[in-house]
Amino acid sequence: MEITRTSLQQMEKRYCATLINSLPGFKCLQLVGTISENGHSNVGIFNSIFHLGASPALLGMIFRPQSEDHDTLKNIKRTGYYTFNNITESFYQKAHQTSARYTSGCSEFVECGLTEYFITDFEAPFVAESTIKIALSLQEIIPINVNQTTMVIGKIERVLLSEDLIEPDGNVNHQKAGTITVAGLDSYYSTNLIAQLNYAKPNVPTSIKTEF
Amino acid sequence: MEITRTSLQQMEKRYCATLINSLPGFKCLQLVGTISENGHSNVGIFNSIFHLGASPALLGMIFRPQSEDHDTLKNIKRTGYYTFNNITESFYQKAHQTSARYTSGCSEFVECGLTEYFITDFEAPFVAESTIKIALSLQEIIPINVNQTTMVIGKIERVLLSEDLIEPDGNVNHQKAGTITVAGLDSYYSTNLIAQLNYAKPNVPTSIKTEF
Repeated sequence: MEITRTSLQQMEKRYCATLINSLPGFKCLQLVGTISENGHSNVGIFNSIFHLGASPALLGMIFRPQSEDHDTLKNIKRTGYYTFNNITESFYQKAHQTSARYTSGCSEFVECGLTEYFITDFEAPFVAESTIKIALSLQEIIPINVNQTTMVIGKIERVLLSEDLIEPDGNVNHQKAGTITVAGLDSYYSTNLIAQLNYAKPNVPTSIKTEF
Repeated sequence: MEITRTSLQQMEKRYCATLINSLPGFKCLQLVGTISENGHSNVGIFNSIFHLGASPALLGMIFRPQSEDHDTLKNIKRTGYYTFNNITESFYQKAHQTSARYTSGCSEFVECGLTEYFITDFEAPFVAESTIKIALSLQEIIPINVNQTTMVIGKIERVLLSEDLIEPDGNVNHQKAGTITVAGLDSYYSTNLIAQLNYAKPNVPTSIKTEF
């Protein structure tokens, strides 16, 4: 079937939002940990995260319009520090529950049954249950005028993970890490490594580097 | 183990790039179809794609520095139109092969064994093998000064997919669609739907909407 722009505009609003959110496929899913002005820990689930560069190591994320009131963005702006924490099948329901609109001052760690984890010299909380924990410092905030969203760019400061998740070439094995992914807002998927392919060159047949 | 910023800076360059690229987990993987000034079809694999908004329906993508010379970005800027096409396990090696540096004027469709597909009143080519095809129009280009990357924002104009891939609530079932995902630059993963969860509310236990 073909969906035109006109038919998109005529769709029921929530149906359309669900369709558009799920259309492009799998997303990078992270629990984002921050700390509020009065020292309360905050954690929220985000799926609009993307790689921006390796040197310096930068990750981007998108906040919806009206996120100024959102604790996570407020805390990132105030402290300059936040964490990304991967989600595994063993606690994905707790991670999803952090998307509920808890009142400011409530810790989603407590409300959702997740465990906060701190390291020395880094203000923001990690999620203890996560197998890959990334500490970030705020680098830049870019307002996106076309739809009033906000792009937040952070630099990777520190990474906590088990050494055996890193392959000899530096590649992180997310199957071993148990990382899951999401399509749309609420459909969670586990993954299965097909293969790691070699660097592609013109006129050289595609080849498998590591098969699983 | 803990990886510090200092140890990141001291890592061998390619190892570090592989680590940073793979660290945040799964990404939205698309073949991007464009057409060049002289009518040549072009297709390239991208994994830096993200949802930006549902109304209007916007998708973002990141181009690396020096992408001005890149056919895909050049073609998007010139024509204002491009396509996103999902990747399935049956042709992921051909999709990966499009990342080889073919000379300008070569069609990656021909070189990599993919089939171009056109619809009336839309200039850019789709990938026939893809089960979800999205036609986009360029909305905005945002230079990201912190690392000289470029963000390209497109609006969804038309969508081609089989009706049975859309669930009653509008959610696209990517397991049915066979969509795969990638971590890092070269590790391809198939997926397995765990569950679709209900909208989370404070003090209401997380619940499963659809189990698979």
